[in-house]
Amino acid sequence: MGKQMRIGVLTGGGDCPGLNAVIRAVVRKGIKAHGWEIVGFRNGWQGPIENLTKPIDLADVEEILTRGGTILGSSRTNPYKVEGGVDRIRETIAENQIDAIIAIGGEDTLGVAKRLTDDGIGVVGVPKTIDNDLGATDYTFGFDTAVHIATEAIDRLRTTAESHHRALVVEVMGRHAGWIALHSGLAGGANVILVPERPFNVDKVVEHVERRFESEFAPIIVVAEGAIPEGGAEVLHSGERDAFGHVRLGGVGQWLAEEIADRTGKESRAAVLGHIQRGGTPTAYDRVLATRFGLHAVDAVAAGDFGTMVALRGTDIVRVKLSEATAELKTVPTERYEEAEVFFGA
Amino acid sequence: MGKQMRIGVLTGGGDCPGLNAVIRAVVRKGIKAHGWEIVGFRNGWQGPIENLTKPIDLADVEEILTRGGTILGSSRTNPYKVEGGVDRIRETIAENQIDAIIAIGGEDTLGVAKRLTDDGIGVVGVPKTIDNDLGATDYTFGFDTAVHIATEAIDRLRTTAESHHRALVVEVMGRHAGWIALHSGLAGGANVILVPERPFNVDKVVEHVERRFESEFAPIIVVAEGAIPEGGAEVLHSGERDAFGHVRLGGVGQWLAEEIADRTGKESRAAVLGHIQRGGTPTAYDRVLATRFGLHAVDAVAAGDFGTMVALRGTDIVRVKLSEATAELKTVPTERYEEAEVFFGA
Amino acid sequence: MGKQMRIGVLTGGGDCPGLNAVIRAVVRKGIKAHGWEIVGFRNGWQGPIENLTKPIDLADVEEILTRGGTILGSSRTNPYKVEGGVDRIRETIAENQIDAIIAIGGEDTLGVAKRLTDDGIGVVGVPKTIDNDLGATDYTFGFDTAVHIATEAIDRLRTTAESHHRALVVEVMGRHAGWIALHSGLAGGANVILVPERPFNVDKVVEHVERRFESEFAPIIVVAEGAIPEGGAEVLHSGERDAFGHVRLGGVGQWLAEEIADRTGKESRAAVLGHIQRGGTPTAYDRVLATRFGLHAVDAVAAGDFGTMVALRGTDIVRVKLSEATAELKTVPTERYEEAEVFFGA
Amino acid sequence: MGKQMRIGVLTGGGDCPGLNAVIRAVVRKGIKAHGWEIVGFRNGWQGPIENLTKPIDLADVEEILTRGGTILGSSRTNPYKVEGGVDRIRETIAENQIDAIIAIGGEDTLGVAKRLTDDGIGVVGVPKTIDNDLGATDYTFGFDTAVHIATEAIDRLRTTAESHHRALVVEVMGRHAGWIALHSGLAGGANVILVPERPFNVDKVVEHVERRFESEFAPIIVVAEGAIPEGGAEVLHSGERDAFGHVRLGGVGQWLAEEIADRTGKESRAAVLGHIQRGGTPTAYDRVLATRFGLHAVDAVAAGDFGTMVALRGTDIVRVKLSEATAELKTVPTERYEEAEVFFGA
Repeated sequence: MGKQMRIGVLTGGGDCPGLNAVIRAVVRKGIKAHGWEIVGFRNGWQGPIENLTKPIDLADVEEILTRGGTILGSSRTNPYKVEGGVDRIRETIAENQIDAIIAIGGEDTLGVAKRLTDDGIGVVGVPKTIDNDLGATDYTFGFDTAVHIATEAIDRLRTTAESHHRALVVEVMGRHAGWIALHSGLAGGANVILVPERPFNVDKVVEHVERRFESEFAPIIVVAEGAIPEGGAEVLHSGERDAFGHVRLGGVGQWLAEEIADRTGKESRAAVLGHIQRGGTPTAYDRVLATRFGLHAVDAVAAGDFGTMVALRGTDIVRVKLSEATAELKTVPTERYEEAEVFFGA
Repeated sequence: MGKQMRIGVLTGGGDCPGLNAVIRAVVRKGIKAHGWEIVGFRNGWQGPIENLTKPIDLADVEEILTRGGTILGSSRTNPYKVEGGVDRIRETIAENQIDAIIAIGGEDTLGVAKRLTDDGIGVVGVPKTIDNDLGATDYTFGFDTAVHIATEAIDRLRTTAESHHRALVVEVMGRHAGWIALHSGLAGGANVILVPERPFNVDKVVEHVERRFESEFAPIIVVAEGAIPEGGAEVLHSGERDAFGHVRLGGVGQWLAEEIADRTGKESRAAVLGHIQRGGTPTAYDRVLATRFGLHAVDAVAAGDFGTMVALRGTDIVRVKLSEATAELKTVPTERYEEAEVFFGA
Repeated sequence: MGKQMRIGVLTGGGDCPGLNAVIRAVVRKGIKAHGWEIVGFRNGWQGPIENLTKPIDLADVEEILTRGGTILGSSRTNPYKVEGGVDRIRETIAENQIDAIIAIGGEDTLGVAKRLTDDGIGVVGVPKTIDNDLGATDYTFGFDTAVHIATEAIDRLRTTAESHHRALVVEVMGRHAGWIALHSGLAGGANVILVPERPFNVDKVVEHVERRFESEFAPIIVVAEGAIPEGGAEVLHSGERDAFGHVRLGGVGQWLAEEIADRTGKESRAAVLGHIQRGGTPTAYDRVLATRFGLHAVDAVAAGDFGTMVALRGTDIVRVKLSEATAELKTVPTERYEEAEVFFGA
Repeated sequence: MGKQMRIGVLTGGGDCPGLNAVIRAVVRKGIKAHGWEIVGFRNGWQGPIENLTKPIDLADVEEILTRGGTILGSSRTNPYKVEGGVDRIRETIAENQIDAIIAIGGEDTLGVAKRLTDDGIGVVGVPKTIDNDLGATDYTFGFDTAVHIATEAIDRLRTTAESHHRALVVEVMGRHAGWIALHSGLAGGANVILVPERPFNVDKVVEHVERRFESEFAPIIVVAEGAIPEGGAEVLHSGERDAFGHVRLGGVGQWLAEEIADRTGKESRAAVLGHIQRGGTPTAYDRVLATRFGLHAVDAVAAGDFGTMVALRGTDIVRVKLSEATAELKTVPTERYEEAEVFFGA
């Protein structure tokens, strides 16, 4: 065992299945392998800014592996946008004698982690996004669970589509990257998959739908919430406010279902999966990945390798520079999308 | 074995997990116990009207028990609203030498079944509605599956609500009866449950939500799609078209989430489960119930007991008059709703 | 609200999904509707005998609805078989000022409840058995979950049986009653179902298996652990010790798989589901039933109606005498078994 | 499109979720991208030996993506162990004008594929093993599903262990490699994980178990079926015949449960998951992986790149030599096992 240390841990950004599994792994390895003390910060970066701490012991993580959400709470607070935010973090760190921070989060949380490291605070990052759009790692935890849930929904929607000879448009998460749409569409046997990376041609979608209707089967269209039609028709997206100030539930999916109904004369329905994709117990895959990320984040801290993030490469967990990880969004490459096209249409 | 008979079977109305299980049971019992021939009619009452038949053998039902939807297709066609509909049914029956029909469906399908029996055509009904709002039977198949799916969704939404200190409004099916809301709300541990049978008071809902936010937990509100606020605020319902002709996805649930956000100043989100509640593989409970309904429908036909419907009473399958079954909607009684109220609020 | 009371609650006998849901309902209704205090007794009747108590508050039951097991622990301790057991219960009751006890358990636990009531201690029972073999109630909670798990397993085993042209024998729980075998066999589409109530004829089973093998499908045999062959061949049951003192895992299922292999010359495998049938999160059905049982047990206490047990009759929760409930085992009636036989064989 | 070709496809060895997804992808891509005809061979290598063929069209693969098992059947037939086997394959190929074969299977099936390529028959391999013990690929499809099922079982067993203060030994698949045990043990939060790669010390296992019993929680031990105790105690394995000729169900798991009970004086139970781990619908992860393997196998055939196998490397599907793939078993490396040890014991 090395020097007796006190390590802070926090979770930032949107909810994601597997956060608790990372926390548990950090606590088990920190305490059992190194004899460290682990201090939880509440609600993302708000915790170190406002000195909201909560000591975490082995007993506290005993039953959390299987649970969604995060026992630490989360927020989107950014210390660089809060008056004196970084200085207040320094004070919290000093007051609590924190030697290093493990920050679990997405692009924003890790962006802060990078800047704090540049500013002399030792941070190790753990990548988290259900959208799988973080560079530098093969996959992030939460993504497999989101795909699993979306696929189960598609499996259920298929039978209802077929019994009623209806088109079903399933809107899944993915504002900037279509990974969930691509994987759940492949796994669910979708007849069209639409992603933000490729503006879609409504005529072509309708063509696939019509050919599908000629068979005894019904068309399933999986569309990422961030997908947009070519030429940029005015499509409001889920969560945006419409002209009357109402939050819109079901954006492009609902829009597309209406277009299909209008153009084909067939019944068409939209299903917007929404938040069920990011809650609840993680899949076994995500539990293993999140656990290994937590263990290796502790190794990085023990090695004093700050400014890094743990990442999956093949079957290995490696460390990459935070700067590399947050450099650019990882979108669906053309060849992956085209690979899926043999399943389109009839 | 009795007289060699030919029996028609059809499925009408909305999709419902367990339809195929009924069909399979009818075919197995009809063929193995009685030596009958079974003829499937396609797309509900459209089948006998347009002579759309499909013989069904043991092999055809071999792999359908676990599948959602219906291998016969469905429709909402009503022979009493189609020019010469009943006469055309008579012709189909004569041409195919059909001795009796087993009609699987909800209020509309069974209403037709009743009138046809009055008009001299032998029909036995099997009750089907995921909403559980058919009188004369304790439960209908499909309901347990819908509640199961809604409950799984609530389990997932709970963790995301808690990590983000958000209110989550879950809109479930139930236009006229709140059974799915009541049962999934109880099973999911909802903090408020709203049903069509009781116009709700928004102030009281907000009060429950606020008390819940005072704890470390987040409020979950389960609302049936047909629930309405007291005083009748203008709430558009899911599937209705708004002033601009757009089909609305998420009616009262979305409306309520906005009200809660406005009045409490806390984040609030709606999740509209929609069609995933009525597709996919049935639960074990529904497979057993649907199977038993199918077996007993064959018994009713063998006994020449037409104009009846099979029904669940306790653990027994009994026969009731179709007239009784379709007399009135079975809604959630006051005492069942009040039973649930100890779980409301904090 | 009535008189301020202190109510004890305990869980006895084998594990069963839904126990925590009952406890939660008792606590919510006792506290919120009546203002009572609730005291948990640990480990079944061992708790009141040894004065092992644990106060339970609203916060303690906040997150337990979805969890299997029991937060109170369980045991098979019988105060009538412990030196001075009943007197020690009286002392515990006096010391803790307990006004009544709600005892959640199966035949043994409820038998004790009945005798204690006869001996002047106020007890209300809540029926619990995954085997569904308790009289006086249509169903017990835990049963639906066990059937659900067994059915999921059968769904999975079917595909492996078919790919390999193998017979698969699935041994499910049910030492004295075949309810789990009957319902999971119906729901899973079994080709033979064997229950303790009817000694089975191996020749007939083999005949069904052989006819099934003549199709392109593979035979699935669901057998209750307590089923026995006609004539009483020496079949060791799961959990019993063999001649060498080893606990036997897989009794009649394993025996039958070997018989089938020997007699048909085809591959045959046994799967023994064991304890996975009684753990984990309850189904929505069981959560609702367990919750309602808990609420109504509080009503019975409030009414001073001791010596009773809550029971399901149709869709109502009623009270029955504990003497009636424990009078005899509820086994599968002949007509229910014969109903299933049209699914046997090919 | 290239030359009009006829491609044979077969599935060999043990059942594995995802086989149908590969077949579907081969058929879709072969027909839609290349205009090929696809011929299915029945029952592994038995098909080409005995000329058991079955043409497969788009319609045949329409509904198989979600199904476990294989529509082609499987066997362990080895043409090099059958009199004239390879010559008979040549005849079948000539007769059916087959241009190449896509062989989906494990070590044995792919070993044959390699030798046939050496003997001049064009074969491309697709790796399949739920055990994940094939070299040259990061993962094989079926493994994620097996881990998912085992993890769900552990989740359920945990609550029953805790309610009864029992040790629970869960025996999972893995005769030569402990991948399923390692991953499901990590995902299920096991307190001890035992793999074939490291003979285990019973004293140490008992020590972990006893420390765990000192907490309020119960020990879960996950053991691969091929794990063996140090010093080589005589442990019979699942599926082996004992001294009396009976097939043993539950080998090392059952043995270990008895050892733990004897040495600790606490109750201990074994659960043997068996065949449920390899049947039923594949996870979304496995559906995507299997689908991509099928698409890339078609690419390899189109490129005339025989003697290769498709493999997963990171997020890419690559081609590797069959000789490399079957060179040696991929076992759990020491560092992966030791990574898990911080979760052992209390």
